[in-house]
This record gives sequence, structure tokens and C-alpha cells, in this order.
Amino acid sequence: MIIDCHGHYTTAPKELQVYRDAQIAGLTDPLRAASKGTVNISDDQIRDSLEKAQLKLQRERGTDVTIFSPRASAMAHHIGDATTSLHWSQHCNDLIARVCALYPDNFVGVCQLPQTPGEPLANCVAELERCVTGLGFIGCNLNPDPSGGHWTAPPLTDRYWYPFYEKMVDLDVPAMVHVSASCNPNFHATGAHYINADTTAFMQFLAADLFKDFPTLRFIIPHGGGAVPYHWGRYRGLAQDMKRPPLDELVRNNVFFDTCVYHLAGIELLLKIVPLGNILFGSEMVGAVRGIDPETGQFFDDTKRYVDAVATLSPEDKQQIFEGNARKVYPRINRLLKGRSGG
Amino acid sequence: MIIDCHGHYTTAPKELQVYRDAQIAGLTDPLRAASKGTVNISDDQIRDSLEKAQLKLQRERGTDVTIFSPRASAMAHHIGDATTSLHWSQHCNDLIARVCALYPDNFVGVCQLPQTPGEPLANCVAELERCVTGLGFIGCNLNPDPSGGHWTAPPLTDRYWYPFYEKMVDLDVPAMVHVSASCNPNFHATGAHYINADTTAFMQFLAADLFKDFPTLRFIIPHGGGAVPYHWGRYRGLAQDMKRPPLDELVRNNVFFDTCVYHLAGIELLLKIVPLGNILFGSEMVGAVRGIDPETGQFFDDTKRYVDAVATLSPEDKQQIFEGNARKVYPRINRLLKGRSGG
Repeated sequence: MIIDCHGHYTTAPKELQVYRDAQIAGLTDPLRAASKGTVNISDDQIRDSLEKAQLKLQRERGTDVTIFSPRASAMAHHIGDATTSLHWSQHCNDLIARVCALYPDNFVGVCQLPQTPGEPLANCVAELERCVTGLGFIGCNLNPDPSGGHWTAPPLTDRYWYPFYEKMVDLDVPAMVHVSASCNPNFHATGAHYINADTTAFMQFLAADLFKDFPTLRFIIPHGGGAVPYHWGRYRGLAQDMKRPPLDELVRNNVFFDTCVYHLAGIELLLKIVPLGNILFGSEMVGAVRGIDPETGQFFDDTKRYVDAVATLSPEDKQQIFEGNARKVYPRINRLLKGRSGG
Repeated sequence: MIIDCHGHYTTAPKELQVYRDAQIAGLTDPLRAASKGTVNISDDQIRDSLEKAQLKLQRERGTDVTIFSPRASAMAHHIGDATTSLHWSQHCNDLIARVCALYPDNFVGVCQLPQTPGEPLANCVAELERCVTGLGFIGCNLNPDPSGGHWTAPPLTDRYWYPFYEKMVDLDVPAMVHVSASCNPNFHATGAHYINADTTAFMQFLAADLFKDFPTLRFIIPHGGGAVPYHWGRYRGLAQDMKRPPLDELVRNNVFFDTCVYHLAGIELLLKIVPLGNILFGSEMVGAVRGIDPETGQFFDDTKRYVDAVATLSPEDKQQIFEGNARKVYPRINRLLKGRSGG
């Protein structure tokens, strides 16, 4: 079985954006109390949005299940206030739950969190609990920079985040560290902000004792870990200079990278450098890069081809990357897959 | 000849920091007018600070000339105002000039710029001119984020920077894109802020037409280009999706990467992916990582060993990386090297 740990619902029917646009428009009207409202999308619209995109690509590429979450760039935690973020997150998560109910063999849910700059995490704790225990989700996307490129939140190792981590540990679900849109003109979202956040989070983990406080807390750093595998020597050296544990020890049970790296040489480096137990297959499809690579004639984000092309991997290695590690990091997936045709 | 394009005076005598501490202390005294003051360092102190560090390492590693600039993390453009930054930059640059005068065979100068958040670049234009025409420097370090981790400046492709670029073109000198210390607790300086800035700058260059306006403008993106070579497929795909020129065309005459990547696998990726004409040997010594890699028994930042270990490079390729490209990107070095013993 091949589990893609990183997919977003980037192809949601346009009615979702209609809702969001109206919600944002309402923010400028001081007389209008924020109401949750409704998102009017039919099951047929959902099917249509997936059949010609994610489901088609799953079939073509030979992957089975996608760990699926709302569109990351649309989370936009910097817009509005805590109520804005709560309503928007709940609608987005409910839509993911409907996707998973319609295609239980193909999708497993991961939730967006109702984060807001400067606000406590109580809403996030409640929404995680609702999604995991109520909707059958297996994880969440945690935004280390809800300000959208201004980086005003405390580092991920700060006690600000601890109430949320307690709930993650309690529910035994991991978080993918994933920023959203950038409202800072310095940072292109998918070309700079995403990658910078990955690199930043890793260095925060390296510098603090978070995993002493939470030995079972698990993070997936997407996009192949940002710059980290390419600069593995730098990080090994910094850890040593700072008298921190070696990187293998730091990551072992707590920090995982996906394979969203869109060329063979990058994937080869990732697989050569990072311990195999810490790599989860992911493609981010349909996502950041949508075109076909003229050098290969294949989609840039068809990352399964790159992993398949690495000759040094044994079948057991590939099984770990394609399935075993995802089952370990997202243990709640095991119960769900048991009842499914691919399980 | 082996030219190291990336070295900072991280071992300057402590009197430099004494000056800086007094300057910063003076900022809190509203009655004290800012005066430039003096930095009291003897030639013998300079010799001593280099003989046991950079010069020793040059000899041991077999490199000849270092393109040398003030300590990057100490530029700290976010401290004080434009006058603070001007005085500090002038002192730091004058010290580099003294280093180059004492060891003309070993060091060539690159200047720090008196940047200040929100201020125009007139002081930077003047200081660049002073350093290049007066002190014989061959380039500068340009900080894309003088706020120190808050990223409040316009992108490097914004017209804000154009007066400075005009002077760079006029003098035919390149800039290394180099941030300084981070005052944002999210960003470890050498482990996150530096690498993020490299990635960010590249994506800014990719997204705009800066090099149409300045066809001879040249930037060196240090630390192996941040995350860029590892994510080369992502950037090729983004460029294609955004209908931008292919990356080879983008970088050809304008964007260069150094070899400050501290493990062999990373250097192998860099040399495999980035056009050879766009790679300059650099080590950042004595800099971000000071220890010895227990896996190799050698210094992490002895990057010459990694380049030497890449079997696919011909002698001509190595000559480009070690010397030819630096002579092309920093053309003012040619006249200087002619009169030197290694030239």
C-alpha cells in the first residue's frame, strides 16, 4: 500500500471561496455580527472536484491513500479574528470529512487549526479534539507563523504551544508544520515562505528540549525538510558546537520529513542523508507545482517516480517510506485502513 | 590559485567589540551626541588575530586568497539609527582595509554597508564608493533584511534598491546577499535566518525582471544558495508555472552560489545541479560552524576537501570553481592579484 502523507484539497468547488470572500467582506462591516453561515456544496460537486484531479492522479501514479487536509495557502490565519478563523477552519475541516466519507478508500483526514496571531490555543485544542474524535481525523497542520510572514508567534519550542501539544499527545496524533499564505511581500508563499518555515522549525527543535518534555510528540516537516538535508553537515556541526544531541537522536522518534522534493537529485540526497525511519512518502499534489518537467516528460510533483528510481533502496526500505513510517507516525490510520479495500 | 569568496573577520581583536558596546550604550543616553570615536587596535593585534586563525587555516587547507569582509552577524543594521550604522560600518571596513594592507597576498576586501531599516540608501552608495575607489575593495555584502528577522524592507527587486544597484553597476562590483544577526526569536542566525534569506532572495530574483533593468548586476547567494539547489525541481517548476525564464537563463550572468555547504553529499548535489559557471568556492571560515566532523576527522567548514572529492569534476571545472568564476564575478580582483605573489 502506498500512503501519500501530504495532500491538500486545492481543487475544492468554488463555493468554498465564495463563502470565504463573503466572510472577509463581512469583516469590514462593523454592524454585522460574525455568523458561521453555510458552505453550499453538493456531494456531486465534491466528487467532480476530485475525480478529475486527485483521484485521477492517484490512479495514474499508483498511490492508494492520501492523508488529506484543507488547502494550506487558504488557511490565512492572519485574516480577521479568532471567530473568523474558527468558522473558516470548521467549514474547511467539515468539507474534508465529507471527502473522506465519500471516498473512504482514498482519503484520510487531517485538520486545519483555528489559529490567530496573539490568541491562546484553546480553540485549536477543541477543534483538534472535534476532528479526531468526532470526524475520524488522524493529525493536523500546525502553522508556526499565523501572522503570514511576519513571524510574530513564539518559537514552536515555547511554552505557549504546550497546551496544544498536550492534546496532541493525549490523542496520539502528529502535526505537519505548515505555514499558509504570505502577506509579507518578501516571501513568495510556495517558493520561499513554505521552505523557510520548514528550515526554521527544524532549527527551533534542534536548539531546545521540547522532546524531553514531550517524548511522544511527532512533527512532519514537509517539502523534504526545507533546506535541512542539503545542509545536514551544517546542522550536525551546529548541534555539536551548541552541545546539543546528534541529529539522528534529535529526529528519531519526533521529527519526520516528507518527500515533496521535485527532482531526482534532491530525493537522492534526502534518502542518502536522513535516516530511512524518518522519511514519509508525500507529493503535495495537487499543489505548489502543477506543470510537467520538460526534462522528464512527467509531472514535477510525481515524487513516487523519484523514489522508485533510487536504485539503492531495498523493497523493505521502500515499504517503510511508502507505508510503514506513515503507519508509525499517524497510528490512527491503522484502524481506518483495516476496514478499507486497500488495507 | 584558490580564491575563497566568503570569509568574515570573526576573529577581530576584542577592542572592536569594546567600541561597539560603548556605541550601543551611548544610544540610551539622550544627552550624548553620536560621535564616530576611534577603534584602538594595533597592527600586531591584527596580525595575532589572523595568524592563528584565517592564515593558519589558509595554509593548512591550501587556499590562497580570501575575499574578506567584516563579521556578518555583527553588522546588526537594526541597532540604533543611520548614524550608528554609518560609524560602525566605516570602522569595520577600515579594519578590513588594514588587514588587506598587512597581508596583500592573502586578503581582498569586501565591505559592510551602513544600512538602516526604512532609510534611503544614500549612505550605502557613498560607503561603497569610498571602499571600492578609496580602499581597493572589490564588492559588498548587501543585507536584504536590515530589520534583523522582521523582514520589513522591500524585496531586493523593488525600486527602493535601484540607486544602490546603479552604483554597483557603475563600479562593476557584485554583492553577496547576506543577512546579519536575528533579533526575532524564531530565527537562529546561522541555522535559520541566513539560510532563509538565501532562499528568499533567489525566489525574489526568479519572480521579477530585475536583471532586465540591470543586465550586469551580479549577486552571490551564499551558503550554497540556501535551499535552492536541493529544491531545484521546485524552482524550475515554479518558474515554468509563472511563465518566467528557465533557471539557467535566470542565473547565467547574474546569480551565483558559493560552496558553503558542510558535507560531501550537499556539495555533490550543488555541483550536479547548478551550472558550473555559477559556483564560486567559499568556506565561510572562520564562521558558522567551528568544530571537527567526527565522521571525517576534518573541519566541517573545510569545503575544499568536498570539492576535491567530487570525482566527476575535470581540472578545468575545478579551476572555474576555485578561481575563474571569482575573477569573473569580482573583476576588480584581477588587477589586485597581478601584483601579488600568488597572482
